[in-house]
Amino acid sequence: MATRMIIINGGSSSGKSGIVRCLQAVLPDPWLAFGVDSFVDAMPARMQASDAGIEIAADGGVSIGADFRALEAAWMEGVVAMARAGARVIIDDVFLGGASSQQRWQKALSELDVLWVGVRCESTVAAGREVARGDRVQGMAASQADVVHDGVIYDLEVDTTHTESLVCARTIAACVS
Amino acid sequence: MATRMIIINGGSSSGKSGIVRCLQAVLPDPWLAFGVDSFVDAMPARMQASDAGIEIAADGGVSIGADFRALEAAWMEGVVAMARAGARVIIDDVFLGGASSQQRWQKALSELDVLWVGVRCESTVAAGREVARGDRVQGMAASQADVVHDGVIYDLEVDTTHTESLVCARTIAACVS
Amino acid sequence: MATRMIIINGGSSSGKSGIVRCLQAVLPDPWLAFGVDSFVDAMPARMQASDAGIEIAADGGVSIGADFRALEAAWMEGVVAMARAGARVIIDDVFLGGASSQQRWQKALSELDVLWVGVRCESTVAAGREVARGDRVQGMAASQADVVHDGVIYDLEVDTTHTESLVCARTIAACVS
Amino acid sequence: MATRMIIINGGSSSGKSGIVRCLQAVLPDPWLAFGVDSFVDAMPARMQASDAGIEIAADGGVSIGADFRALEAAWMEGVVAMARAGARVIIDDVFLGGASSQQRWQKALSELDVLWVGVRCESTVAAGREVARGDRVQGMAASQADVVHDGVIYDLEVDTTHTESLVCARTIAACVS
Repeated sequence: MATRMIIINGGSSSGKSGIVRCLQAVLPDPWLAFGVDSFVDAMPARMQASDAGIEIAADGGVSIGADFRALEAAWMEGVVAMARAGARVIIDDVFLGGASSQQRWQKALSELDVLWVGVRCESTVAAGREVARGDRVQGMAASQADVVHDGVIYDLEVDTTHTESLVCARTIAACVS
Repeated sequence: MATRMIIINGGSSSGKSGIVRCLQAVLPDPWLAFGVDSFVDAMPARMQASDAGIEIAADGGVSIGADFRALEAAWMEGVVAMARAGARVIIDDVFLGGASSQQRWQKALSELDVLWVGVRCESTVAAGREVARGDRVQGMAASQADVVHDGVIYDLEVDTTHTESLVCARTIAACVS
Repeated sequence: MATRMIIINGGSSSGKSGIVRCLQAVLPDPWLAFGVDSFVDAMPARMQASDAGIEIAADGGVSIGADFRALEAAWMEGVVAMARAGARVIIDDVFLGGASSQQRWQKALSELDVLWVGVRCESTVAAGREVARGDRVQGMAASQADVVHDGVIYDLEVDTTHTESLVCARTIAACVS
Repeated sequence: MATRMIIINGGSSSGKSGIVRCLQAVLPDPWLAFGVDSFVDAMPARMQASDAGIEIAADGGVSIGADFRALEAAWMEGVVAMARAGARVIIDDVFLGGASSQQRWQKALSELDVLWVGVRCESTVAAGREVARGDRVQGMAASQADVVHDGVIYDLEVDTTHTESLVCARTIAACVS
């Protein structure tokens, strides 16, 4: 069966966005890319720093509220509906809840054919890239590096610690059926 | 019946994005905002300047290809699915095809309750704001100002020529049931 | 004597940036544009939210530290040196200290020929545009609207409350010798 | 004598910006960062795609016009004046003219104490990172990778092919006196 969605999970500054752009470049068909960042951008500004929405503490800790979860569930169903309607869709997400985050996607996916990809990056390297980006709260990379993979089951994993985004993307593309 | 979607149509630099952010601020419930810009951002980079995707000429003319239309149809279905799943959704779009663009949305919407909003702005004023933005190809505002409203039927229209975004947003919010 | 610099002062969300881009478009010679935003972008990330640098409170209040002032003085001298070396330079600034901010520029300017421009915008209108922008802390526009003009002497003032950026820019351009 | 400026030269997508942000983070004093990108942003929009300004061809080739060169000379003098006035300044530049680009800086610098840094990156790796960034014309990285270093004399060189930005930054910081 043809892969309709690729869901990529990894901590902040692990290199997901770069891999997604490379995937869009190397895959012959046009794939749409969405992710937790574009979802947060779609929320009202007041939810982007609130108890009900998403809050990023000075140490990089991330809190998610009830309104965020409710909108996220609807957003997930919509993204899956795009794939059912014929689009190929790449998602990059940060599974703050590990296995329970994956289950939220699985509930929306039902029987749709998905390729699950884990993006690893050594915590200290990711923390260094966070400094190099300059647009993230320091500490997110280190605090998320391991916890987001907790109990998650993948079809394949890539590691950006010593491997370029484009090379990781080619490895993933080879698994797309 | 409660309004599940607000679809806002207007030419480039007519002030849609500002109205959307104000709507998100004044509406008491959290609304998600998507639009043609976020859709184009989701496409592969190579489609953002190609015959198959979207192409913006030096004079600001916009051409849309077959791949763009196919992905757009799936994207529309997905966005509508988000609203059916319980999210409130605001869309800002540029109906380059006028009435035929509206029909594409209506096909995806089926019986969902939508508020259709037209955003007008005098062509010369929109062209001036295009200069002030500095990030758009000159000429888009003028070439789109009228054609995008051709044959489109609205629940209400606002005009940003002499009215601030926040005031327009309050007028729209008053029509949300 | 030919105008070498245009210094534009106004509160947050009063419309300075739009006027600057329009000025660059309508002035026949090429003018370089710098401002307090590009200066803050040039600082280390850690100074962009600290006692020693610049700090923006939850209510939009802005605090400036000693390191910021020292770097700013050197930056002002450098920008003036660009103008002395033959570049035409537009600056947009927020005179949080009113007349004392203007004096800091005058110290760096010595006898260079400058056009001083004040940008006014009614506080409630600026606050509404702050909501429409969506990328500023709410409250900055209102808190800065009047105080930045306190004791400042201008060659001309424009008011964006009811006048488009491009029209304001043409008024300013007519005063450039 | 204390280092007043660090001038970093490398091709597009060689990793200069990441190194600059890491340098700002690891150096104990506050350093201001400017570069060819912030200079181009300061130019009128019409010069950002013109014969007189800067033009980027579909293959990533970059052409520089006479107006660009004139403004650049004044900008260089101003940046050096900032350093003379007491600021510490990091510049990232792309020496399209190799040694002749370095001479333009030397003319402005006179006797100011500068640390010259070359940033190398294998052409194919830089080209891959260009794909991962997604915001650059494909081909710039490969076409600039070697030519920008032609005849340029450095105090030290770093290579981002297999070394993280933060590690490169620490190597550079150790040479700052």
